[in-house]
Amino acid sequence: MKHIRAIAFDLYGTLFDVHSVAEQCNERFPGRGREISALWRQKQLEYTWLRSLMNRYVTFEQATEDALRYTCRHLGLALDDTTRDALCEAYLRLKPFAEVPDALRELRRRGLKLAVLSNGSPHSIGAVVDHAGLRDAFDHLLSVDPLRIYKPDDRVYTLAEQAFGVNRTAILFVSSNAWDATGARYFGFPTCWINRADNVFEEMGQRPDWEVGGVDEIVRLFDAANAAT
Amino acid sequence: MKHIRAIAFDLYGTLFDVHSVAEQCNERFPGRGREISALWRQKQLEYTWLRSLMNRYVTFEQATEDALRYTCRHLGLALDDTTRDALCEAYLRLKPFAEVPDALRELRRRGLKLAVLSNGSPHSIGAVVDHAGLRDAFDHLLSVDPLRIYKPDDRVYTLAEQAFGVNRTAILFVSSNAWDATGARYFGFPTCWINRADNVFEEMGQRPDWEVGGVDEIVRLFDAANAAT
Repeated sequence: MKHIRAIAFDLYGTLFDVHSVAEQCNERFPGRGREISALWRQKQLEYTWLRSLMNRYVTFEQATEDALRYTCRHLGLALDDTTRDALCEAYLRLKPFAEVPDALRELRRRGLKLAVLSNGSPHSIGAVVDHAGLRDAFDHLLSVDPLRIYKPDDRVYTLAEQAFGVNRTAILFVSSNAWDATGARYFGFPTCWINRADNVFEEMGQRPDWEVGGVDEIVRLFDAANAAT
Repeated sequence: MKHIRAIAFDLYGTLFDVHSVAEQCNERFPGRGREISALWRQKQLEYTWLRSLMNRYVTFEQATEDALRYTCRHLGLALDDTTRDALCEAYLRLKPFAEVPDALRELRRRGLKLAVLSNGSPHSIGAVVDHAGLRDAFDHLLSVDPLRIYKPDDRVYTLAEQAFGVNRTAILFVSSNAWDATGARYFGFPTCWINRADNVFEEMGQRPDWEVGGVDEIVRLFDAANAAT
């Protein structure tokens, strides 16, 4: 951590809990909230990967809506337009994980530059960050949208290097998504995997440099590394 | 179907049942066979997509082995080298779906050229096809391996057009994998989705031209189209 000057955070699943929509899903489809939320997230990711490979980009909002339509059809649930819009709107008001707001403030107090680097569109990222009152916590909100390609394409990770104006070796990349951490590490970022749910890492030829249980642990790792100097 | 001169078949899940390995999984891990087989297949696909996006190709055998290791770690199952090798070997001896051998023969009798177009390596494809005694059923066995990229990248679908020497509009692409059928249709193939398990199609902006329950139904569709002439 000693040479780290800036941190790029993944948004969905890392700073914000994508499964906080399960509650809204459960109101609309009683008893099915978690099941819907899990498949919805899985399909949302698949659609970003597959559309990138097919060179058929749509915005993250569109991929999210498509994934919800698939999920409801697969589960045999009727999805009317009002419910669809309400659930997709819920994705703009995800909750941050509990430790996130304080931990971001602590990292900035230590002189680190912070960015979001997300598959979301500028609109989605802005909405989620604003809703949580965290706009001021970041120096940059970086979206894949201008590139019309999704993670883990290398060009996405380059956005953080460009925005910070710092070499990739001085940028810590933080993600809860092991496939994203894998892509970032192949790119050349020192990488921290947030493993909140005791998952196992992906088997794609990389391991994270650090594994933590939340963003607050990154503050402690940073302090320990600098105290050791 | 009237203008179709050749057919390119996906292999895994389309002509051959990937879940026929569940039996071997179940012998090694009693009661867990189907669960292992389902997650193994899901991860195998994810690894092909993600490695394509990261430009970090490994062979399909390697991706298959990586996916098995992830699956067992995720499920908390100890995987020794002997078991790993035995289960990966099982992927080289998948069973064809029951109607496949006869249906392929019927299609060739009607003058159609047939090919496999698969994510598998030449070794994998050859082993699976030979084990089922179906080598002579095909004019071409086409692997993504020389391209070092996986479906649904457009370059893969081009392989069939090149091998048959026929325009894509005269090549029927057949897959049970809805994401693969989606990619093929974006490429410009007339596309038939084999839906054996009453699934719903993916929501990525395409629909198959035909949906059938097995390869034998393609024979009937072809006959009906030509009888109508």
